[in-house]
Formats: sequence, structure tokens, C-alpha cells
Amino acid sequence: MRASVLGSACALLLLLREPACRGDEVTSSTVNPCCSFPCQHWGVCVRYSQDKYECDCTRTGYYGENCTVPEFWTRVRQFFRPNPDVVHYILTHFHWLWDIINHTFLRDVLMRLVLTVRSSLIPSPPTFNSKYDYLSWESYYNLSYYTRLLPPVPKDCPAPLGVKGKAGLPDPEVLVERLLKRRTFRPDPQRTSLMFAFFAQHFTHQFFKTFNRMGLGFTKALGHGVDAGHIYGDSLDRQLNLRLLKDGKLKYQLINGEMYPPSVADASVRMSYPPGVPAEAQMAIGQEVYGLLPGLGMYATLWLREHNRVCDILKAEHPTWDDEQLFQTTRLIIIGETIRIVIEDYVQHLSGYLLQLKFDPTLLFGSHFQYGNRIALEFSQLYHWHPLMPDSFLINGDELSYEQFLFNTSVLTHYGVEALVDSFSRQIAGQVANGTCCVLVTHSYGAFLQGRVVWTSDFYNSLCNHQQLKCCQIQLSIFRDFWQSNKEIVRDLEELYGDIDALEFYPGLLLEKTRAGAIFGESMVEMGAPFSLKGLLGNPICSPEYWKPSTFGGKVGFEIVNSATLKKLVCQNTRTCPYVSFRVPAEEKQEHGQEGDRAQTDEL
Amino acid sequence: MRASVLGSACALLLLLREPACRGDEVTSSTVNPCCSFPCQHWGVCVRYSQDKYECDCTRTGYYGENCTVPEFWTRVRQFFRPNPDVVHYILTHFHWLWDIINHTFLRDVLMRLVLTVRSSLIPSPPTFNSKYDYLSWESYYNLSYYTRLLPPVPKDCPAPLGVKGKAGLPDPEVLVERLLKRRTFRPDPQRTSLMFAFFAQHFTHQFFKTFNRMGLGFTKALGHGVDAGHIYGDSLDRQLNLRLLKDGKLKYQLINGEMYPPSVADASVRMSYPPGVPAEAQMAIGQEVYGLLPGLGMYATLWLREHNRVCDILKAEHPTWDDEQLFQTTRLIIIGETIRIVIEDYVQHLSGYLLQLKFDPTLLFGSHFQYGNRIALEFSQLYHWHPLMPDSFLINGDELSYEQFLFNTSVLTHYGVEALVDSFSRQIAGQVANGTCCVLVTHSYGAFLQGRVVWTSDFYNSLCNHQQLKCCQIQLSIFRDFWQSNKEIVRDLEELYGDIDALEFYPGLLLEKTRAGAIFGESMVEMGAPFSLKGLLGNPICSPEYWKPSTFGGKVGFEIVNSATLKKLVCQNTRTCPYVSFRVPAEEKQEHGQEGDRAQTDEL
Repeated sequence: MRASVLGSACALLLLLREPACRGDEVTSSTVNPCCSFPCQHWGVCVRYSQDKYECDCTRTGYYGENCTVPEFWTRVRQFFRPNPDVVHYILTHFHWLWDIINHTFLRDVLMRLVLTVRSSLIPSPPTFNSKYDYLSWESYYNLSYYTRLLPPVPKDCPAPLGVKGKAGLPDPEVLVERLLKRRTFRPDPQRTSLMFAFFAQHFTHQFFKTFNRMGLGFTKALGHGVDAGHIYGDSLDRQLNLRLLKDGKLKYQLINGEMYPPSVADASVRMSYPPGVPAEAQMAIGQEVYGLLPGLGMYATLWLREHNRVCDILKAEHPTWDDEQLFQTTRLIIIGETIRIVIEDYVQHLSGYLLQLKFDPTLLFGSHFQYGNRIALEFSQLYHWHPLMPDSFLINGDELSYEQFLFNTSVLTHYGVEALVDSFSRQIAGQVANGTCCVLVTHSYGAFLQGRVVWTSDFYNSLCNHQQLKCCQIQLSIFRDFWQSNKEIVRDLEELYGDIDALEFYPGLLLEKTRAGAIFGESMVEMGAPFSLKGLLGNPICSPEYWKPSTFGGKVGFEIVNSATLKKLVCQNTRTCPYVSFRVPAEEKQEHGQEGDRAQTDEL
Repeated sequence: MRASVLGSACALLLLLREPACRGDEVTSSTVNPCCSFPCQHWGVCVRYSQDKYECDCTRTGYYGENCTVPEFWTRVRQFFRPNPDVVHYILTHFHWLWDIINHTFLRDVLMRLVLTVRSSLIPSPPTFNSKYDYLSWESYYNLSYYTRLLPPVPKDCPAPLGVKGKAGLPDPEVLVERLLKRRTFRPDPQRTSLMFAFFAQHFTHQFFKTFNRMGLGFTKALGHGVDAGHIYGDSLDRQLNLRLLKDGKLKYQLINGEMYPPSVADASVRMSYPPGVPAEAQMAIGQEVYGLLPGLGMYATLWLREHNRVCDILKAEHPTWDDEQLFQTTRLIIIGETIRIVIEDYVQHLSGYLLQLKFDPTLLFGSHFQYGNRIALEFSQLYHWHPLMPDSFLINGDELSYEQFLFNTSVLTHYGVEALVDSFSRQIAGQVANGTCCVLVTHSYGAFLQGRVVWTSDFYNSLCNHQQLKCCQIQLSIFRDFWQSNKEIVRDLEELYGDIDALEFYPGLLLEKTRAGAIFGESMVEMGAPFSLKGLLGNPICSPEYWKPSTFGGKVGFEIVNSATLKKLVCQNTRTCPYVSFRVPAEEKQEHGQEGDRAQTDEL
């Protein structure tokens, strides 16, 4: 209880903007004073002698010993800065207002504002990483690292998260069992479909490729963004194996007269399948783990077909082009299509905003925006959305359990792309705050175990602070809200962590109270959106050097990029046009919600 | 002769801004129309059918079939854009004016203008490379390539440089013998010293590391800029071998009580020495070829001493820091010192500007500047300044021939750093337009041979055009000037290339008429400066994220960066403070000029 009271006092002090609520706790001369994270508002803590530190407040907008005193213009901005929850409320209500705005220049103005405000929170060039809690050439130069927004906790701190909390972190097994495991399936109130869930998984695993063998905090995806490496492979060698080397196309196989990824027998690349799956049954895909789920195979198939379709169009336009130019130009088109679909379909749905989002790189041409991106460990951790997954999969009237679904090499070709798209678009996903189902708990638990080691530093609170949210307030709200609604969870959290400031990032995000009718709480959105938009618009194709028709082979190719939608991706690559959406139809919500509840009841 | 007349007509047309002077030459339907480079002003040529092309003029400021018609604001800018020669004249004359400007806010205003105008010419993110004459993910992503500002000539063109010129390029041996070999040593009228020449060589070979084994147009230096890889090595493995792994320091050996790079026996890294040089005699340096010249060894020694000196200072400031943090922070300080010395000493001297140049990254914080850099092949080619080298080396009263100087492992330790600095600062370098001396011709010839293959595309004229110089005019001036002063050279050029537009880049730059009293002609400066400044200011340490005291260990480290000079680099790391300058003393010029002349006479 004492810890909680301290937390509240700290929160209140911070809210009142008094000199640091953490710096004054440094008492022992042997403890690294930076362990208590005294420097606020992105100030950098530099240790001098045993117990002396200085905060570098340069360009934080604050000054004072711990960068806590706002400069004049910071005060002005703070005064005018609207509360994120209020902004969210406005953006998700007042249909009549948005109907007007979306048809005027205000749409561009607001979209530009969204992009600049969000992306300005991401340091670029990147700064820290899992090894370096100070700026170094190595962390800038070595692309094998995920970057980190927040420096890791110094190595010589008394507690895993600095100075607060228990000496050891809670047993992950206990944590997962008590807090992260799903008890009852709760359908997402935003009516998110499995089509969305698989898109998320397929899309993000081009840049989230943690390289455990190299150590924690490393990535295999050196492209650090939307490079379509999940389609073309991360290495030139893998790419060449996947390519037909004719007309720019990728290798494929025809099954029932339809195009699918080639088998590993035909495209010799390493895929992760359980032992015993013959090469003929393994599909060769850019991302080596996409054999795991038929939903991933489905998207891989759609993008393969789209790639080869675009090649045909380009070849007709440019009969003199060689295989290489057709391939490379198609790749840029595919990247452009991806970014457009992510912003205008995926983020549009996820945000719930009534502002009609727009992928228009020219909106940023007048700003200081830096083209370039480095995937952050915080982003990777945040994106563990396993709770989206249902308790079982409903395809064409069949119900498949996880055991039947995982690594199933025939579901995709048995039902075909149309049936899968239709079924996944009609089945509702789980609310993310709802915990993870059954076998996925093992995966989630693994991710968590992996995360926490590199993650010990970034206690949730500190990132809140960095993102200029009303940090302590949010934390308290988690506790308070659960206190009111679920005393057991709060008791567990307090027992496990001991101190409100020692709560780890991932459980903090997942257990936060969701916004009314929303899939997430405030923090997931406010922290995730900056990473996401910076990554999407930081792509070189969005730069003034690249964003022009010739980059995409001329007007026809540019038009493909400029008119891409999820629906087109599906319907231009299937015989019939199934129901395709990131949102289940209104009538299905109830049905599948009950379905889920029933399944959950069975499990319990 | 006909070619020359055509060239003049083309030049006149371009000057009058009539529709392209090249596009209308496309007659044969079998020739790739892009071979004639029809698109002007950075317009991108996209081939459609056999004889159809389109120019993408997006954001070039021009429109029309071949991007030749200026938009309104382009016309306005053109009207106000001063002639580069006039600007140069003003910047290098009127001492009284500059004495005033340098003490007012106008210094910052002009410095900001220099930085933005120059660096805006360099595409960022980078665009083409030796393999790709169109935008592709591969050329963006694969750091092993040098980038190229101009796309290479399409592979299916009738002539090596497109459609003009002879079917084959001139015999390089003939070219070098007739045009690039020094006849008489001409001392640089800007009084450039050998101290400058060795600095240039030492500094630039951290990012010019052509990787011949991988193919032409590749580089080993993946840092693509000022990363101090020439001090610390390009790989982590090499770096760790060079480090003492104590107090952040680099390994060293003491000779006559003074610090020198360690021997390869102590720091096991591969160095390029002729066979038979024992490991004990080889010095271990970040850059593997720096055993070639004692001048490079001298700078390597100075930076080694500086690194270890800064480590001591940081250690005193931060007694708790471990070896890694001391090393990494010192490295950032060394990079900062390098950039300051390059801008405020090196470029200041080279430019001859009376405007006092200033390394102040904050000048760009309000602009669209992109932090990031990719070394361009054009820059690498341009920087072959072998003519700077004298005919022999005068050290402490001794005269050393190339045979005595190259790969000499004892010159450095025999004379010591002080004597070398003093001697090199007093010996004058050659004017770059003056051709290359004796044994270096072989090297220059090699570079040229290597260059031309990857280079065939970039005929000089096109780059002039891209850099918005009055291209054809300059080309004509080369010919005309030589016509007047050296008919033999012009005859050779016309005979060798056949067409003014087929002149290769490197000989074009080297043979251009120099500005009055200057080391170079206009093109070397106008083309080199953008690459240079973009590379220096594009360094991550110059970004708002990095440019603050804590990055350099606090105020003391930041002050080291902010006060670095060539003189300090030397005098804080030697017992006595020798004469140190990039410019020889006034009285030495005459003497060494004569010396040079004499030596040259002997050679002849």
C-alpha cells in the first residue's frame, strides 16, 4: 500500500509540475543516480561522480535541474494542447461534422496535423538500443539492433526497473496465468474482423523479426519498415530463389487453376514448418514463418497474385523492360499499395476516426519530416495483439480448433482464397484488453519472457511521460479502474510489482482500461500511432525524390498505388468477389460474440 | 569538327531554353530513346515502346515534353540566381566587407544559405547506383553500393556515353599519357600545403573505399560518411582488435617516449603492406591502406593521441563510466572534431572564401534538411586529387623521392610527428589542374580505368546540367580556353572523344580552366561542395536528436567539439607546437615553387 501512496504523491507532484518527483529520492551515495530516472521530459541523465548527475534538457522545452520547469512556449503549448481523450472523442463522434470536413480542404489540414504531431514524437535519426543507454555510433550504425525510444535501465541499478519495485520481477508464469490469459472471449466492440487480425500479423512481421540467436533486442529485418521483405525475402539470395526471373514475376504454382505460392521443392528457401512436413507441402514465402497460419498464407497468396498481376500491366506498358526492371518497379508499387491500404483501410478501421484518413506523402513535403525509420523495441512489444485471435476458426461453416488450424498446409488450398477471405471477414476478433486464448498463451508468454529482459528499463510510466501523456494519471487510472471493476487484478498487480512505477510495459498496456466502445485503451493508441505513422511515411517512396509517376513505371503504375484498397487487393485477384472487410457485418457481431462466449464457456 | 559545331548549337539552344537539344535527335526506332538523355533538369526518362519515352518532370520546376519549359517561379529564381563565378568573386574579394559581415548576424545567414543551397542539390534518400538507372528498393537498401546522382547510361545504347561520341572510349593509356600526366610542377596559387593534401587523403578514405572485388561501383565503407572508420576500423571485429578495452582507449606503442599506433603484432588487423614487411614494423590503423604514406601515418598518430587524450578527460569527468561508454562517447567527440576541422580549416582554406565558415548544426534546424548520407560515385571520382602531390618530399632538409617515401615504415618515427607536421605545412602542393606526377600516374590511371567503366554514363555535360550550372557553356569554355592556350590538348580531346558531349567526367573536371588564382576550375567546386557539405551536416551528430552536450559526455566534451581546430589537434598532442597550416607561409611559396620547378626540370 505504501508504494501506491508514494506513486500517487509522485503523480500529483508531476501534475503540478514541481521539481522532479523522482530525483529527490536519491539518498544512497552508492546507487547510480540515473537509476531513479530523475530527468523528465526526454531530458538525458549523465552520471558524473558516484552520486552526481546532470540532466541535459536541450530542446526538451523544459529547464531546471531535472528538466521539470516548462519554458514559456511550452507553457503556452501545454495550455492549448487538448486532452488525448477529448481529441479521440471528437474524432470518433459527430458524423455530420466529419461528413463536411471530409469534403473540404480541412481533411488535408487535419491529416497533415495527425502525421506531424504523431511522427514528431519518434527520434530520427534513432537513438538508444538494448545495449546502449547513451548515444553511440554503434547504435546508430548497427542495423541489427531494434532501436529504443527510452534508454535501458543502467546495468548497476538496485532494482530491475531502476530503484523502485521489488528486487526481482514477477514470475512470468504467474503473471501470464493470473493476468494475461483469457477467461471469457470478449468480442471487439469495434467489430474488428479476423481479416484485420491476419492483416496485422502478415503486415507487421515484415519488420518485427526478432533475432533471438543474436541476443535480445536484435532484428533480422534490416529494412526497418515497409520493405515488403515478407513477400520478397530479407536477402538477395532468398529473393532470387522466389523469383521466376522472367517478366519480373515471382514463382508460383497452380492449384485448381488458381495461383498460389510455389512449393519449397520449386523455390528452395528455408521455411519454418514442424519436422516431417515434406518440401512439396511447404509453401515458399518471403517471411519464413508464414506457414504457421492459413491466414498468413492467404495474404501471401493475395500479394503474390497482385505482384504478378502488376508485372503483366507494367510489361504491357513497357515491352522493352527486362525482368529486373519489371520486378523492382513492381516491388515499389507493392510497397506503395501496402502503405495506402494500411493507412486508408487498416488504420482507418483501427482508429475508429470519422476523419477520412488519406495517404498523401505531399502533405509532409513542407515539414521537417525525416525520411528513414528504425523499428523500435517498444513498438515491437506493443504490437503483441494475440488477444485478437478467436477461440476457434469458423470457415465455410466448419469450426477449426487451433490444433487443426496451426501449420495446416491444406486449409488454404482446400477452401481457397475466396472462402477464407469471406469467412475471416465475417468472424469477429477479440478485444485486445481481453487476454489471450489457449495455445497462444504459450506464444504470448514466450514473447513476454523475451520482452521483459530487454525491457526491464522501460517502465511504463516513463514512456507515458516521454509521450507527453499525463503519465502517472494514466497509471493510477489503471489501478483505480480495476479497483472498481476487478479488485482481484489490482491486488495481483500490486502484489507482483510492489510499486506502481515498476509495472512492466506490456502488461501495463494490455491491462489498461479501454476507451468506451474501443479495442484498446488510450496508451496503446497514443504510443502506437507515432511509431506506425513515422514508419509508413518515413518510407523512401514517400520522399519528394521518389514520390512521382516514373518511380512506379509511369502514370498507370502510380494510379495503382493511388487507388489501392483492401477490396481491390482481393477482388482483382480472385474469380468471384467475396465479402471483404476489416469489420464484420453488423449482424455477425452478435452471433460470433455468442459463439465466442460459448467456446469460452466450453474451455472453462 | 562537325561534332563540335553540333555541340555549340546544342549549347545555344539550351541557353535559350528551347525544347531539348537532345530529344530531337532520336531518329532510329531501334535505339532506346533514353540513350540520348532527352529529359532535362533532373527529369526522369521512362521508356515505353521501342521508340517512345516520357519525361517525368515532377518537381523539377520545368514542364514540357522534355522538362525544358521553366515554370513561373523557376523563371523568377533563374532571373535572380547569380552567376557562380560572380558569387565566387564576391566571396573571395572585398576583405573590408567580409571583416564586417563575419562579425554580424549576416555570417550565420550566409552560412545557412551556403549549407542549404549546396546540400539541396543532393538527392536524399539516395536514388540510382551503378546497376540501377531507375529507382529501386535494392539501390536504396543495399549499402554496399555507392549511390549515383545521375543514372548510368542504359545498357542498350549505341555509344558508351549514350548516342554521342565514338563507338569506343579512348585508350586510357593514351588519355593519361597525353592529358593527365604532369609536365611541369605548378605550385598551387592558393598556397595549399602538403599538410592539406595528406589531410584530404586521410579524411576522405574513411568513406571512399571502393570494393573492387565485389564489382565496380561498390564500397567497403558502409558508414557512407564521417564515421571515423579510418580510425576505428569498419567492422566491430577490427575495432575491438584496435581497442585497449580499458578506459575507452585505443592500443598504442611508445617510441622515443611518444605515442604511436600499435604494431600489427600487438593489434592483429590486416594492413596492406608489400610482402616481406614484418608484423612488428606494420602499424595497425583503422584504414587498412594507411601504411602507404607516412603523411597518413602521421594523421593516424595524431587522431590516436587525440582519442586517448579525450578518453582521459572524459574519465576524469565521469569516473564511473566503463570502457565502452568512454570509447563510444570519445568516438562521437572525434567525429565532431573532424567535422569542425573540415569545415572551419579545410573547406575554409580550399574555398578561399573570405566569409568565415562556421560549423553550427543548429543553422539547419529550421530547414527540411535530411540527416543521412550516401557516398556518390560522382563524389569519389571527383576527389581524385593526385596532382596535389609534389615531385618529391622535403622533410627536415632531406629530400625524399617517392621510392623512398611510399610504404616507408620508419619515416614517421624517425622524424617524429612534429618534424613531419612542420615540413608538410611548409611544402607547397601542386595545382590540381596540373596533372599527376611520376609513379602516381599509375595509380591515377588505375583509378581512371576503374572509374570509366562505371562512369560511362555520366558524361560531364549532363552532370553540369543537373547541378544547374550553365553546362554547355562550361564545356565550350574548356575547349575554347585550351584552344587559346594549349591547342595540343584541345586537339587531343577532340580526337579522342569525337564529340563534346562524350567527354568523360574525370578528365573534364581535371582539364577545366582554373579560376584566377585558384586550385580548381568552377565545376570541381560547384559539384564537389554539395556532396561535401551534405555529407558533413548529414551526420547524425548534427541532428537535433544528437547535437547536445550529453551526447559528448557533457559540457566539457561538447566544448572539445566546439573548439576543435587543426592547430589544437596537433599542438595538444605534441611536445612542442610546430608550424601547422593548410597553407604554406608566404615566403615558402616562391622557394618551393622554384624547388618544384627545378625538380620538374630534372625529371624532364
